[in-house]
Amino acid sequence: MKIKIGIVGYGNLGRGVECAVRQNSDMELYGVFSRRNPDSVETLTGVKVYSLDDILDHKGKIDVLIICGGSATDLPVQTPALAEHFNVIDSFDTHAKISQHFDNVDKMAKLGNNIALISVGWDPGMFSINRLYAQAILPEGKDYTFWGKGVSQGHSDAIRRIEGVLDARQYTIPVADAVDRVRKGENPQLSVRDKHIRECFVVAKEGADLSRIENEIKTMPNYFADYDTIVHFISMEEMQRDHSGIPHGGVVIRSGKTGLNGENNHIIEYSLKLDSNPEFTSSVLVAYARAAVRMNKDGIRGCKTVFDVAPAYLSLQSAEDLRAHIL
Amino acid sequence: MKIKIGIVGYGNLGRGVECAVRQNSDMELYGVFSRRNPDSVETLTGVKVYSLDDILDHKGKIDVLIICGGSATDLPVQTPALAEHFNVIDSFDTHAKISQHFDNVDKMAKLGNNIALISVGWDPGMFSINRLYAQAILPEGKDYTFWGKGVSQGHSDAIRRIEGVLDARQYTIPVADAVDRVRKGENPQLSVRDKHIRECFVVAKEGADLSRIENEIKTMPNYFADYDTIVHFISMEEMQRDHSGIPHGGVVIRSGKTGLNGENNHIIEYSLKLDSNPEFTSSVLVAYARAAVRMNKDGIRGCKTVFDVAPAYLSLQSAEDLRAHIL
Repeated sequence: MKIKIGIVGYGNLGRGVECAVRQNSDMELYGVFSRRNPDSVETLTGVKVYSLDDILDHKGKIDVLIICGGSATDLPVQTPALAEHFNVIDSFDTHAKISQHFDNVDKMAKLGNNIALISVGWDPGMFSINRLYAQAILPEGKDYTFWGKGVSQGHSDAIRRIEGVLDARQYTIPVADAVDRVRKGENPQLSVRDKHIRECFVVAKEGADLSRIENEIKTMPNYFADYDTIVHFISMEEMQRDHSGIPHGGVVIRSGKTGLNGENNHIIEYSLKLDSNPEFTSSVLVAYARAAVRMNKDGIRGCKTVFDVAPAYLSLQSAEDLRAHIL
Repeated sequence: MKIKIGIVGYGNLGRGVECAVRQNSDMELYGVFSRRNPDSVETLTGVKVYSLDDILDHKGKIDVLIICGGSATDLPVQTPALAEHFNVIDSFDTHAKISQHFDNVDKMAKLGNNIALISVGWDPGMFSINRLYAQAILPEGKDYTFWGKGVSQGHSDAIRRIEGVLDARQYTIPVADAVDRVRKGENPQLSVRDKHIRECFVVAKEGADLSRIENEIKTMPNYFADYDTIVHFISMEEMQRDHSGIPHGGVVIRSGKTGLNGENNHIIEYSLKLDSNPEFTSSVLVAYARAAVRMNKDGIRGCKTVFDVAPAYLSLQSAEDLRAHIL
């Protein structure tokens, strides 16, 4: 019996899940649930589209729902509501609100005897696990997370809201010298500005005041004011030709000491270089969807995170094969 | 109540555990168990030494034993025998015999209602987990493990057995070009020789035939014949001055494709750079010792591996704190 996956929300992430499921021989796609009129949604692989309004009609027929909405407004509502009726998994990534989201989802998942895995992806997600492992192994140390080079959707959107801007793409870039110092075990104190550069590609309306736009970007609080920011004005043609991808990545590094007097240093590093941020996140979600179904079969209920998932739950291979071939 | 740790075997690994326990505020060292006469063993921190023969007298007083013997002859006997009476953890690293060791240990641990975590360290151990995670996330891909630069104890010992050799140190070194090709996502086919170089530092007896020794090293089956091997003859003084450390490390890289037609590539990389191989392994053992005690309290019995341990079990922090600060 294959694991039946339902996709809720059909944007970049939903399409990524649709593709990722095909790479896993123990899974099949049940369907896509959309807020849009199902007849208006064309899927990549021809999988059936249903109205999200009717999703309770499918209760009992789906092993796990992968909820692919946004963290700002979709997931805080959808994940708890759906967790009452289905096993669910989401990629909720507003770090400051994870505890609150956890509590809301936990209550509803327990009510329905379901499992809900939240904040699955790469950060939060794989980066979080690596922070945990490295801190547990090297208690006397310091860790650093660098993001990029990659597109930040939030920062790109912030630029697009400036008067006179037609389109924008913002790349977050780790400062190479800072990464090198961390890799050498120097444990430097790094300010926000020391760690990342923000590089912006902007298409302006004809006749717009470019120096005003550049100044508004560079002085924007929270988003850019604390960083060294580079602004390039380009044509719409260049934007479409050179900046249509959604690459991302980053690195988690922990440097720590061992020995009777801390005489030995160790560096643990985990890094990702991703051509497509949403497709990689989708692939993480699909692996954890397998884990969610298995954990629920083992009697595990309520809200869980990647911290609660033993690695073996993620793999298609049996425990014996894992021990014989991967350990 | 602190977790009470017992150390079985007092070599480099045992001393590493002794130091690592001091970095974890929820643990304390109960004592060291040695096959040697306890009066002849001086510990780094003054912790008490007992005879291994009397270890059953301490049953019920120790939360977990960290067994620090060798994989060739110690662990296959000690881990099953002790698992009947204590929670235990070892770093059994003979990959080909893990399945057999698992079965032996599992039977005895279940007999005693204990948990036994085997093959804990970095390879097997952290590298294994990273192979599993990366394979589960990117099913269509290929992964590579490179070791080094670091000292291989087994290869150093093999050289020492050659007639005319007083001392030897062998460094395993990944071939930089091969690592680069993997990092670029080329998914190359790599032979044993393509992946690692073996560099040997040898102290020969006065008057020994150096070219015979060099030839015997380079043609030694399994150990050196399949590799590009470099041999340096040095003085005992140089050996002691320049080669007394036990550094090691390495990297696990998986490169895989996603998208409807595999159009996007992703690289997942986990790397370690260790000043002291035994001290790092000890630090991993100590973190998993915490997990073993907690899992046993949760009713988990029998033999387990790192694949079965949910990351949260390793951390001193509460589930709430982990979600709030690390996720």
